Order: sequence, then structure tokens, then C-alpha cells
Amino acid sequence: MVDVVTLGETMLRLSPVSVSTLEEAQQLQVDVAGAESNVAAGLARMGLCAGWISKLVDNAVGRLIARRIGWHGVDISRIVWAERGRNGLYYLEPGVDPRSTKLIYDRAGSAFTTLRSDQLDWQYIRQAQLIHLSGITPALGKLSRDLTLQVIDEAKRSGILVSIDINYRNKLWSARRAKKILSPLAALADILICSIRDAATVFGMNSENPEKVAAEMQHTFGCPTVVITLGDGGALARSNGTVEYQGAYAADIVDRIGRGDCFSAGFLYGFLREDVPAALKYGNAMAALNQTTRGDFFWCDKQDVEALISGERSAVQR
Amino acid sequence: MVDVVTLGETMLRLSPVSVSTLEEAQQLQVDVAGAESNVAAGLARMGLCAGWISKLVDNAVGRLIARRIGWHGVDISRIVWAERGRNGLYYLEPGVDPRSTKLIYDRAGSAFTTLRSDQLDWQYIRQAQLIHLSGITPALGKLSRDLTLQVIDEAKRSGILVSIDINYRNKLWSARRAKKILSPLAALADILICSIRDAATVFGMNSENPEKVAAEMQHTFGCPTVVITLGDGGALARSNGTVEYQGAYAADIVDRIGRGDCFSAGFLYGFLREDVPAALKYGNAMAALNQTTRGDFFWCDKQDVEALISGERSAVQR
Amino acid sequence: MVDVVTLGETMLRLSPVSVSTLEEAQQLQVDVAGAESNVAAGLARMGLCAGWISKLVDNAVGRLIARRIGWHGVDISRIVWAERGRNGLYYLEPGVDPRSTKLIYDRAGSAFTTLRSDQLDWQYIRQAQLIHLSGITPALGKLSRDLTLQVIDEAKRSGILVSIDINYRNKLWSARRAKKILSPLAALADILICSIRDAATVFGMNSENPEKVAAEMQHTFGCPTVVITLGDGGALARSNGTVEYQGAYAADIVDRIGRGDCFSAGFLYGFLREDVPAALKYGNAMAALNQTTRGDFFWCDKQDVEALISGERSAVQR
Amino acid sequence: MVDVVTLGETMLRLSPVSVSTLEEAQQLQVDVAGAESNVAAGLARMGLCAGWISKLVDNAVGRLIARRIGWHGVDISRIVWAERGRNGLYYLEPGVDPRSTKLIYDRAGSAFTTLRSDQLDWQYIRQAQLIHLSGITPALGKLSRDLTLQVIDEAKRSGILVSIDINYRNKLWSARRAKKILSPLAALADILICSIRDAATVFGMNSENPEKVAAEMQHTFGCPTVVITLGDGGALARSNGTVEYQGAYAADIVDRIGRGDCFSAGFLYGFLREDVPAALKYGNAMAALNQTTRGDFFWCDKQDVEALISGERSAVQR
Amino acid sequence: MVDVVTLGETMLRLSPVSVSTLEEAQQLQVDVAGAESNVAAGLARMGLCAGWISKLVDNAVGRLIARRIGWHGVDISRIVWAERGRNGLYYLEPGVDPRSTKLIYDRAGSAFTTLRSDQLDWQYIRQAQLIHLSGITPALGKLSRDLTLQVIDEAKRSGILVSIDINYRNKLWSARRAKKILSPLAALADILICSIRDAATVFGMNSENPEKVAAEMQHTFGCPTVVITLGDGGALARSNGTVEYQGAYAADIVDRIGRGDCFSAGFLYGFLREDVPAALKYGNAMAALNQTTRGDFFWCDKQDVEALISGERSAVQR
Amino acid sequence: MVDVVTLGETMLRLSPVSVSTLEEAQQLQVDVAGAESNVAAGLARMGLCAGWISKLVDNAVGRLIARRIGWHGVDISRIVWAERGRNGLYYLEPGVDPRSTKLIYDRAGSAFTTLRSDQLDWQYIRQAQLIHLSGITPALGKLSRDLTLQVIDEAKRSGILVSIDINYRNKLWSARRAKKILSPLAALADILICSIRDAATVFGMNSENPEKVAAEMQHTFGCPTVVITLGDGGALARSNGTVEYQGAYAADIVDRIGRGDCFSAGFLYGFLREDVPAALKYGNAMAALNQTTRGDFFWCDKQDVEALISGERSAVQR
Repeated sequence: MVDVVTLGETMLRLSPVSVSTLEEAQQLQVDVAGAESNVAAGLARMGLCAGWISKLVDNAVGRLIARRIGWHGVDISRIVWAERGRNGLYYLEPGVDPRSTKLIYDRAGSAFTTLRSDQLDWQYIRQAQLIHLSGITPALGKLSRDLTLQVIDEAKRSGILVSIDINYRNKLWSARRAKKILSPLAALADILICSIRDAATVFGMNSENPEKVAAEMQHTFGCPTVVITLGDGGALARSNGTVEYQGAYAADIVDRIGRGDCFSAGFLYGFLREDVPAALKYGNAMAALNQTTRGDFFWCDKQDVEALISGERSAVQR
Repeated sequence: MVDVVTLGETMLRLSPVSVSTLEEAQQLQVDVAGAESNVAAGLARMGLCAGWISKLVDNAVGRLIARRIGWHGVDISRIVWAERGRNGLYYLEPGVDPRSTKLIYDRAGSAFTTLRSDQLDWQYIRQAQLIHLSGITPALGKLSRDLTLQVIDEAKRSGILVSIDINYRNKLWSARRAKKILSPLAALADILICSIRDAATVFGMNSENPEKVAAEMQHTFGCPTVVITLGDGGALARSNGTVEYQGAYAADIVDRIGRGDCFSAGFLYGFLREDVPAALKYGNAMAALNQTTRGDFFWCDKQDVEALISGERSAVQR
Repeated sequence: MVDVVTLGETMLRLSPVSVSTLEEAQQLQVDVAGAESNVAAGLARMGLCAGWISKLVDNAVGRLIARRIGWHGVDISRIVWAERGRNGLYYLEPGVDPRSTKLIYDRAGSAFTTLRSDQLDWQYIRQAQLIHLSGITPALGKLSRDLTLQVIDEAKRSGILVSIDINYRNKLWSARRAKKILSPLAALADILICSIRDAATVFGMNSENPEKVAAEMQHTFGCPTVVITLGDGGALARSNGTVEYQGAYAADIVDRIGRGDCFSAGFLYGFLREDVPAALKYGNAMAALNQTTRGDFFWCDKQDVEALISGERSAVQR
Repeated sequence: MVDVVTLGETMLRLSPVSVSTLEEAQQLQVDVAGAESNVAAGLARMGLCAGWISKLVDNAVGRLIARRIGWHGVDISRIVWAERGRNGLYYLEPGVDPRSTKLIYDRAGSAFTTLRSDQLDWQYIRQAQLIHLSGITPALGKLSRDLTLQVIDEAKRSGILVSIDINYRNKLWSARRAKKILSPLAALADILICSIRDAATVFGMNSENPEKVAAEMQHTFGCPTVVITLGDGGALARSNGTVEYQGAYAADIVDRIGRGDCFSAGFLYGFLREDVPAALKYGNAMAALNQTTRGDFFWCDKQDVEALISGERSAVQR
Repeated sequence: MVDVVTLGETMLRLSPVSVSTLEEAQQLQVDVAGAESNVAAGLARMGLCAGWISKLVDNAVGRLIARRIGWHGVDISRIVWAERGRNGLYYLEPGVDPRSTKLIYDRAGSAFTTLRSDQLDWQYIRQAQLIHLSGITPALGKLSRDLTLQVIDEAKRSGILVSIDINYRNKLWSARRAKKILSPLAALADILICSIRDAATVFGMNSENPEKVAAEMQHTFGCPTVVITLGDGGALARSNGTVEYQGAYAADIVDRIGRGDCFSAGFLYGFLREDVPAALKYGNAMAALNQTTRGDFFWCDKQDVEALISGERSAVQR
Repeated sequence: MVDVVTLGETMLRLSPVSVSTLEEAQQLQVDVAGAESNVAAGLARMGLCAGWISKLVDNAVGRLIARRIGWHGVDISRIVWAERGRNGLYYLEPGVDPRSTKLIYDRAGSAFTTLRSDQLDWQYIRQAQLIHLSGITPALGKLSRDLTLQVIDEAKRSGILVSIDINYRNKLWSARRAKKILSPLAALADILICSIRDAATVFGMNSENPEKVAAEMQHTFGCPTVVITLGDGGALARSNGTVEYQGAYAADIVDRIGRGDCFSAGFLYGFLREDVPAALKYGNAMAALNQTTRGDFFWCDKQDVEALISGERSAVQR
């Protein structure tokens, strides 16, 4: 019996070790990065039972990816293993202002994009309490798009909650096409998470008033719960006609990437275990703590999150 | 003939290399850390003759600890070597706000806690000008408590100055017990160094006025010189009825740990070579410089200290 | 439903990074090492369902140990977590002939030595097919000795196979005492694994003829299957009156430590899935491959093992 | 005016830093590897003017590849830069006997496979003295196959020498198909380099007598000069009816990969500057020295090569 | 045909890896650093054809220096190679406020200081559009002083533009002597680049008004174009009676060293390709970007520079 | 009261970290290397009181050298500190057969070559039991030559034993000149240590019979004790008309450099504490163990040496 199932691609992330630019790198740091596996990892570290479904090539690189995710306690037993093909990857060159952070994607034709619905363990999915997806998967090709829809349909049929994080990536598709594909999916979500920027870019919901954006989104898609994330400004949730807002926790930044996923993990944890106001607190706390460690994953634990929320944190725990 | 003798435990300090958390560490940076050996190292780098007395296991780990301290010029010839047992250690996971810095102590039952007074070279102690101790040693067990008292008694008998840094550690004992044990020792000190926070926690001397705390402490214990350290606020000394205050030097921070010990080293250097106002300047300058290097030790030299105090420092010394 | 359960202590193993001696080390490589968890990891990599039971302190060091073992697919859900205490460790300085390899143990008083039988999930143990133990655990103290006996008793009552690897450690106890404690345990084993050297040292079964040693051991303890390991000479099993011998596979050596555990894992895998002759092949193959990677763990997989046994291995797999 | 032009793909080569297996790698060593660029680099280090033609994506990874080759003095001004697409790569896990070395190729759809003949600077090619190609390029797809043929045709028309290294890769195509495609190309070569193993695998020229293989190859393809490489057994050349043999130089091995390319570079250097017997010596010497450094490239220089050939080498050059 | 030729010394730069001070360093990071080669590298990365003339010892250290410069696309074919002698070097210990950055020079008697005019390829120099020199070279000794003058004379005779960066180094000579030697050279420059600080220190042109300094410098030396750099304050150029000012671009700082050289490279690029106002923008943009990477070199490219100037830069380029 | 005083230069030794050649090195390993300081370090680790006299520049590099030597317990209080100048260094590129090990010396004009006799603490020298010198010092210049002679003269006058290791370096002087300078010094030695190769090269004593060489050397110079080292062949001593021979201990080799110095340390230890046969054993044992660690220094201890000599060494010390 699993609390949350997530489904999506995870890639190798390669970035320079101890030098500034990729061009001069003699060594690359190896991380793994994928929005949905990251949410699963965050949930597992908070004590929920979380499983991640994906497809990887059955070689050392695929195993490296799977085991890095399993490390955090995520159930990786439902990964579909491909005999041949490739695992996606991207190169990351972290910037320093005014030098831009640069990402070079090399994910086309990955094993994940060949994942078909008949390869999934539907039984496993059906016994979950919630399934979490992101707007990245439907951008990866027709097969992935169909898969997303089938999973959502099955969830609805089985009475499982559906959570979707919009997560728009302009390298993968145009905003216009994203809107066309994502709108019907959004309309099926029980929890819809969207950044204020994606709300504007993808759905044209421009406004300086996040509350208004949340209302418009709920009106358009009819989701019971809509969450608008505001970056350093915290997050806002509209649920059952009530609006809750929670400011972000201040944090020194080591590595920004993964913050959004950790917010989602925290929100879902709070949503499933407590209520919406608590969900916003957990989301913001996990987002803040995530920024203080290298890599996409959430490396802290429940105790750190609770200490931050309760305000009883000490700078040094001797 | 040695200027200053210090006595206390020194541990291995293990912290992650180039990753954020202990859990994911594949390599640990090896440092050695002990309040009293750190004071001795700071004094030796300032040109004084300083010796450190302790007990270590005679294996590679013990030798590593001893030689790291000897590196700075400290006389390590009076270490007592145990044939068996263990050297204490602690794990350090440096935090980034709001992620706490975490210390995991693993020091129970170390060789130092078995150091008996009949193992010391009392002749060596008797020819020093000053002996420096901290409030950590009496917290380590009955043997260490008795040892502290015996050393102080012998010093008083031989006309040697006694300096004590309160250094309260709540992992080792309660504030109540610390007060009970440390009060009679403090009453024997010629120089008593205490942070404003420990003054409140241990001795209940709460006040927003450090001068008042210094006065109360001098009144309670009768020490000729009382130094109250104020963290980023500098330090204050009350000696012979006169109060001197010296603000801290601004510093970017690489590693905070060891700052208090370097203050003590600077203060003792100034006290023995010049006067109380100079002692505060040396203390604050060494504390500031110590924060700009990794590890507990003071890695700068007398020239750096004097340049900071004189204000003739240049950002780049070509 | 788990195929094999193992129970025992696992420690942190700290060894110099890129320098020859501990004394000069500025960085230590972090590995985890424990005979029984290593067997479980080897079995999991071969595709069996293996669980490891132990006790660790619930801090970053304990989690590091647990997750390194879980990495290989071992079920770590039955670890008992202690709120306080310490995790055992040892320092390893790899030698180069004629400089000895040196181990400095620092394991006294570890959390594992406080593991009591009422903390175990007996239900979990009862549903296994085989339980694997080693002669190290009863050497750790009375509590651990009693625990070992209780586990064996329960296994016998529930019809679970019991495998014991003698694994004599002279730092922990004398050969005489080991013989006294281990003999009654050995008499309860279904599979008894013992090196030719330990057979001589502990049980006084000196002989240049391994077959004779196996026979004597079977005669003494009455175990259905006795395995005598011969180091570079391979291994021999006496089972149901039949003796099987299998020579070792030649291997270049990167790190010898863990070889015995990997032999045990291979033997148990073959024993449970095929037969005794196959078991010896799997044991020898896993022992050989284990020596080609750093650390105690088995880092290869089933395909590597089968290729080595079948002789169809190619030097380069392009 | 360039002495030698080579043309072919070069990939990123990623291998674990300081650990044994890819699965556990946290850092990957970055090398670049391509047979033809490697030959060009070897020639440039010997003092010839060598240019390398290829196609790379114009991003940090492409620039890294180009500049690593340019480092050795190769003219990289004729690389064709693609605005989008991907650079090929492979993962390398070095083996230790009996653990196999494993290569995981991820080169499908690379920018090089889109290189068309109208993108080449034909003027540049025409002014060379010799053009060197390998049997890898025609295996990469129709475009690359056509390109190879066009380059050879143009060379023949312009009176430029053509050198081909068969270099059969079974991951890219079957031996049967390689024979069909490579035979007509081989027939156009002035210098044909082939390992004794590829002669058997691809062309079915099985023989324990390398001289016989060389004769058969010259008979079949009619090339003026045929070179058969024998791995640790040295190499043999049949040219103008004369057969020359030269044994290999003994070498300790750090990294075997790239040895064949360095042999080719040495052979071509000797062939262009001296004669066939000298060419074999240079080839064997560069092959031997190449094995003593990490990575595919030849990192020694002309002086090292000449010292090895002359036998006047000293173990330590103080 | 080369656009710009630069001439000057380049040294090895050795700084601690991952520790704070040189004293405790077990490993040193190897960089190469020289004002004039750095300008050539910056120009080459912007797409100009730039050559660097110097003298190095023909050993691995000399080759390391040359190839690090050639990496960026600089023509290194005119380096004069010495058979014996030494390459200059300096140690760098980066400071953290208030700990000073410390440089320990070890450059006396380097091969460069033995470079004579009859060793230069004058033909090569004569076909350039501009030659760039710095005030460091004439400080290195009589031979270098004479060489500088001969190069400038030849440039004037051949109608080549001369650019001089004053670059005063007080470790090499006194301000008084620098003024005496540099003044007649400055009078021959077409472009004279000088920091506001050097204008005061060397030429006694003290003023809080940079415009006034530029005017005075133009009046004194009669150079067509005078550039006054103001550190974080940007730069100002006086050319043909017109004064242009351009503020600095804000930048987070990773490594300050090399900023001035990158300004010069940017200024010369803009001057040769566009006009003086553009030149200031390019100079400031390259100076800002240079500070965001480790080492002296400019590691960004033309696209980064143009994005910064145009204001269309995004923090993350996905 | 010091047992042995040594005098000589010590340099920084810079070698590539984890790559094969200097040319591609991005990081250099920092060691310190000097024959005489190495002998002192070996003696100190054996428990003798050893002091090292030299001259270093008073900067971070000089301090690094001094403290690395002091680490081993050598008395470094008599180093003469120069205010300016340079510390010598050399680059080391370790070879792999048939690639030569290459050393690039950069030691000319070092602070040590300016050491004058009036800067020495003669009192300190006079109270030693033995003074050890090498044939390198007189090769460094007239000042160093005179110094060597003065030290020997003073030793003879004060009844101190003089030990000289010939240590011929062909980069510093010709064999002919070495013979001329070293012969009168050798004639003053109580203990003369010379390799069989140097005996031939410098003194023309060619022979396949080491015993004969020893006899000839004793006859020529009249030294009471002559030691001829034979590399892997062990060593032979002729003392008081008696000849003793001791074979080398087999050793796997990590780093050969420093072996001769460790032999000398071992020989002197045995000579001073026991007798000539023991001295040869200690010399060979320390030479063997030294080869198993990286760097010049002896990193083992007395216990390792004694275990090797007694034959009671175990491969693993658990």
C-alpha cells in the first residue's frame, strides 16, 4: 500500500567540479534530476510511502539513476527496464551574476519517451492515495502524452487523488501548444500547482494579484485545490472557496534547482496528513531547506522541517 | 622554560568534503579540535613558548592529532600516550541558514578521560608562567574534574597564573551542575574568560549590560581579571577596578568554530607581553582572522595580527 | 516474504584518500563494513530478497550506514533505531608489502551491542527461508550472545534454515573462548562456513587436507552442510556425505576486504536456487569479482557472475 | 599547407574518478576520444602539420572536444559547427581482471552523422599530402558512408595519399556488412592498416601467419602498402613486395585505449618522413608510450619516441 | 595575417586547492597568468586573430603555459623556446577580509628576461593591425626595456597601431623609475590605458576628476586615445577631443585577478571593430564577466558579452 | 642535547595529481624533498633527537617546508630565515616504463645558497654526537662548499662524528669536478656512504665486486667506516677491517625517491645505538618501507622497522 505514486522522466545531470565553466572541466559532478522523482524523494523523507514509475535503460547509468532515487526511501520496484536505448542527460554550468547559468539538454530519444501504458503495473497505481504528475511528461512526445492521460483516467476511475504541477519548459514546446495539451489535463486535477509565471506564460493569466490568478484558474479548470507559487514570495492556495497565503522562509542559497519540486512534496505531505494551511507551511519550509544543499534532492528530514516551522530551530545543534 | 601550559582533550573532527550533508558524504575532511590545544597553537604562532598536556592513544589517529598541534610550534613532548583505548571524535555538518549546523559527538570513554594526576610531569608545569584551562575538562568525569583541581592547586602553590575559559557545553552537563563544579574553580582563577551567554546560562547573571556582568562576576569569584566576550560585539575586561572595552573587527566568515579559543590566545598573549587594553585588541584581532580560514586553528601570524590592529593592512600584499 | 535475513553489526570504515598513511591523511574515504550486511547486499544484487536486521543510532552517521546497505536492494526496514549512543567504526590503513595493512577498531559500546531480543520483529524473521549469522556477533558481549542464540532457536522452531560463518576475530576474543561459545551454535547450523585457518585456530582441526577438516567438522557439529574456504585455493563443501571442490577464479586485487562475505553470499544464492556444486561456483565467482572493486561490497551483478562461471566473459564489453 | 588531414567523429568519454564502478560514481573524468582526431594529435606532437575535419555542436561540450584536440597542435579551423543537435558520448568503466571493462555508447544521432559533403572545405583537403580515414565513419550511416567515399575520390583525383585503418566496431555493424562496405574503400587505399583480428573477423583471412594475411590482403585489395598490427606482438608491413616486421616495445599499462591510433600516427609519420622500416618503429614506439598515460591521446613528444627507438632512454631524466 | 600581436611574460600561478592558506596546502591549483597573453586570449575568444610573442623554456612547464594560452585560440607559433633556464612563477593565497590576499613572486631570472630582439619574427609583427604591450615588460630588465622600445619603433615605422597598458607593479620598480622609463614609451602610444590609481602613483596626476586626468595625460603624452579605468567605477576614454564615459556592470566576484586585462581586450576589440563608445562597453562587459570565473583568463564568449551589453541576458539559459 | 645534526637544502617538490603528465596537470601535489632533512626525519621517527640546519625564505612557502620537516619530530629551531629571496623547487613527472620519470629543477639562486657560516649556531652543532652531510651541498656554489668544509672542521675539532653521503647529482656538476671537491671531504668522514654507481661515476672505482670497491674506498680516503649501497642488492659495510653484507628486503614500490636517505637514517640509527651489522639491517629495512609510501619521507615507525627485521610482521594488523 503506497501513499503517493509519481511518474516521469529522470536524467543524469552533469556539472563542472571545482572550476567555473564546462569548457575547462576535467571532471563532472554526477547528479540525477527529475521533477517527479524529486517529489517522491521529498515525500519519502517526510515519512510517507512514495513510489516512482519510470523507464530506464538497464545499464550502469540507469541503475545509478534508480538507486540515487531509492536512496531516499522511494519505492523503485516499478521502474520499467529497457534492454537498449539511452538515458537522457543534461549539462549544467552554474552561473554567477552577470554570467548566466547554462543548461545543455541531451534528452531526445530517451528510454522514458518509449514508455507505453501496457508496461505499467496498473494494480500498483490503483492502490495509491494520490498520484502526482507534471506538465513535463506530456511535452516529451505522443506516447508520453497518451500515457499521462491514461494514468489520470485510471486514477479518476479508482477514486485516487490527482496532483499536477504545470512546470512549463520552453525548450520542449511552445506556450501555445502547452496550453492546448495541458488544459484538459488540468481540468482533471484535484490539486493543481502552478507558478505565477507559468500562469501568465502558458494560460495568459496575467495579474499582479496572485489571489485573482488562483480564482481565475479555479474558475477555468474547476479544480478543488489550486496552488500558486510565488518564488521568493511564498505560495497561495485556493481550496473550497477559501484562500490561504504563506510567506517564504528566508534562506541562503547553495543550489536553487529542485526548489519547486520540494515545495510540491511539502504541500502534498501537509495536504494528505493535515490541511491546506499546514500544506503551505510544509511546502515553503521544504523549498527553503532544499536551497541550502547541492543538487535537486531534499537532503534534510522531518525534524528539520518541523523545527523551521515551529521557529525553535537553533543555528548550531551541538 | 615554557611561557604557557594548557591542558585538555583534543578530538578528531570529521566533516563532509565538498557536499552539503553527512548522509551523502563519500569523503570526510579530517581536522583536530580542542579548546585548550587551540589556545596553545595560537600562542605559539604569536611567538610564545606554549606546551599542551593531554592523553592520546598511541596509534596513527593519536599521532595525527598530536602532530597537527605540533605543526604550529606547540611543545607536544608532555602528551601522555595510552597503549589502548580510543581517541574522541565528532562529526560536523556545517549548516547554511536556515539549515542548522549539526555536531554529532562521539567522545565518551576517550583516553583523555583516563588521564590521572600521577601521569603528569609536574616539574614541567611548575616552570610555566601561566596555565590555561577550560570548563570542558571538569565536565568529562570525576577523574578529569579532580585533575583540574590538582593542576590549579599546584599552580597556585608555585605562583603560576591561572587562566580559565568557562566554555559551557550543554551536551556534557547541565547548567546547574556546571555552576556547582565551576564556581570553586573560577574562584581560583587569575584570569576568568566567559561569554555573556554562558554568564547567563551557567551563573544566572542575566543583564543587557556586560559591564555589570563583569562586575558581578568579579564580585562573586574575586578574580583579579574578568573578561566577558560578546561575540560579534567584541569583548570587555575588568581588571584592577578598571573596565576596558574593545569592539570586534569586521570579518567575512569561512568557519566560525575556534573563534573563542583564538580570542583567548590573543588575550593571553597581550596580557603577558603588554597590558589589558592591548590584550583585548590581540584577542579580537585573532578572533576575526581565525574566522577567515577553515578549521579551528589560527593559521595567520603575528604580522597579520599587527597589521590588522595598526590599520595598515592592504587587501592585496603583492 | 523475504528469502534471506541476516543479522549483525555494521561499522563506518575510514581510510586515507590518495595518501599512504593515516597519519598524514587530510581526507578519509567513507565506507561501511559489516560481514552480515555484506552478505545481504551480495544476495540482493543476485536477485534474492534479502533483509538485514541491526541497531543503529538515529543520526546522519546511522542513516549513512543504513542507506549504503539499502543501495544494493537490501530491505533495511527492520533496523532498530536508537535515540542516543554511538555507531561503531574502524580506521583502515591499506598496506603495501612489506608495510602491513593496519586496522584500528573503535567499536566498543556501539548501539548494536545494546540490541535486545524484544526489539526484533520476530514475525519478519519467521517468514524467511534462511537466516545467516556470523561468529562476530556472539563475540560482542552477553546481550549479543544471547540474541544470537534466541534467533537460532526461533529459526529452528519455525523450520528456517540457519547459516553460520565462523569468522573468528582475535581482537574481540580468545580462540579458546570462541570455541566454547561457538561450538553449541555451530551444532545448530544447517550450513556452517569456516575458513581452513579458523578451523585450526578456533577448533584445533589442523590438517593439510581440507577434506579431512570438513569431515571432522561435520562429525563434531553434525551440520548437514559444511563449507571450508581455502582463500586463493577455492572452497570445498561436504553435504549429505558428498564432497565437492571448486578452485578459485584468478583475480587482480584492488581491495581484498569483503571477499569472504561475497563467497558466503554466492554460496547461499547457489544453495537456495540450484545445488551445492553450483553454490561453490557462485561463491568463488563472487569472491573473485569482489576483489576487483574498492570497499567491502559486491558491486558487480548476476550477469558478471554468470559470464565468469560460463567462461564467456570478454575483457572488454563494447 | 597541411601534411595530413584526418576526418571522423570524436566523442566525450566519461569514466569514474577514483572509484571502481560507474554505478557508485559521484564524479566522472572527462576525456575526448576519436580514432581520427587521435591520429592527428599524435602526428602534430611529432611535428607534422595535421588538420582534423569533423562536425560538432556549437556549445560548451563541442568546444571542449575541439579545444582538447587543438591542445596538441592539431589545426581545428575546419570543424563544421552545428547550431543544434548533440555531441556523441560514451561511458567507460575500466575493468580489473576478471571484471570486464565496459563501454556504454550513447552516440546515435550525433552532429557528426549529419555532416554532408557540401559542408567541407575541399580546398583545404586538396592541399594535403595524405588523408587518413577509419572504418568507423562508414559504419555511422548513409551520409557518413557517402562522405567517406567522396573524400577518397577527391583525394585520388588530387593525387593525395589515402590511408585507411579498418578499425571494426561490432556495436555499429555486422562483420558481413562491414566487409561489403569496406572492401571497395580498401581497394582505394595507398596505406591499409588492419589488426590481425579484424582481418579474420571482417575479411575472413584467418591465419596464424601474419605475413600470409598481409599478402592475401595486398592481393585482394591491391594496396601498395598493407600494415598488419599484432597487438603485443608488434606489427608487420608489406610494401612493394617487401615484408618488414618490428616487434612491440615492452610497456607497463596505465590505459590501453588509443594504442592503435598512436601506432597509426607513428607509422604515418615514419612513412612520410623516412621509410617503411622506420615507420614500423615509430608506430610501435608511439603505441608503447601511449599505454603509459591515461586517456586516448599521445602525451609524450618526439624526443621520448626517439629515445625509445635509439635505446638511449634512462629511467629517470634528472 | 593577424589582427593583434601582444608581447610579454607569462608565469605559472600556484594557489591552494580547497584550503585557506598556502602553509597547509597539500595541493596547488595550476593556472597561468600574464597580462599580455591574457589580452590576446580575450581578443581570440571575441573572434579576432591574435598572436602572442614570448620566451619560454622548452620543458613540460613551458609547454603547459603555451598550450593553456593556445587553448583560447591565440596563435602561439611565434614563442621563442629556450633550451635551458626557468619559467617564472608566483604563489597566490586568496584572502578573505580582513585576511589579505598574498602573492609571493618567484620570477627573477626567467627565460623571458633573456628574450632579445634578434629572436623575434619581425615579419610577423609587421603584418599586424595593432600591437599591445604593457608597462610590466620594461620593468623586467634592460634587455626587456630595449626590446619594448624596438617593437614600438618598428610598429611606428610600419604604420601599426600601438596600445600600451601602464600596469604599474611596485614589486618590480619604484614609481619614480617607472615614470622615467614609461613616459617616452607612452608618448609613442596610439592607445594609452591607465588606471586612475596608476595615473596618480606613477605620473603624479592626482585628481578626483577622471576627465581631468585623461585630459592631462593626453596633454602630456599626446596620444590620440587615452583610457582611464576606474575599477568598480567603469572607464572613461578621451579620443579626438571627445570624452566618453561608461559605468561598470555589476558582478558577483569569484576571482578578481585578470579584470584589467579583459577590459583592455574588450576595449581593443570594440576600438578595432566599432568605435570608442562601443569599445568602453565591450571593455566593461568583459571585465565584469571575467570576475565570475576562476583564474585570469576570459572564459566566456562573444554571445555572453553581447547579451550583457544588450540587456537581454537571462539568469538561466535553458 | 641533540643526537644528530644534518645540514642541507630542502626544496618544494611539485608533481601531477592523478594525471600522468605535467603538461596536462591542473593540480600539483606539494611535497618537500631534501636529502639531509630526510635523514633527520627518519632518525627522529626512530626516536633519536635530530636537528636540521638550513636557510629558507620567511614566507608561506618557507614555513611549509620547515613545518613538514618538523612534523616528524625534527628540531627546526636552528633554521636561518631570509627576509627575501626564493626557496628552490623541482617538478617531478613520475614515469611508467618505458616512459621516463622526468625532473625539472628550478633551484638556482635559492636562499640556501646564500647561507654563510656566521649565520650558524655553532654552539648547537658542537653538542651533537654526529653530523650528517651530503655531496649535494658542496655542488651548490662556493659559499655552500666553504660552509661544508667549515662544519666538518668544527666537528673534527669538537670530537663529533662526521657522516657523508656522496649523493652525486650530474645536473649540478661534472663527475670530474665532484671528485676534486668531494675527495678531501671524504677523507675527513668517519662514515662514508656511497652507492656502487657513484663510486664508479665519481671516483672511477669500477668493479663488479662491491667488497673490492669498499676496500679501495677505505684505502683511498682512510675512513673508519665505508658503506656501499647496492640498490635492490642491499648494502655492504667495511669497518675496522671487517666486512658486513646485508641483502635488501623485498618491497612493492609506490615511490622510489627518498630510499637512499632512509637507508642512511637507518644505518646511522643502528650505528649509534647498536653496531655495524645492525646498522645495515636498519638501513635496509627503512629503505624498503620507505618505498611503500608516497613522497621522500619515512612515514613508518620503529615498530614497523623492528617487525620487518625480526620477521614477525603480519600482512594485516587487526
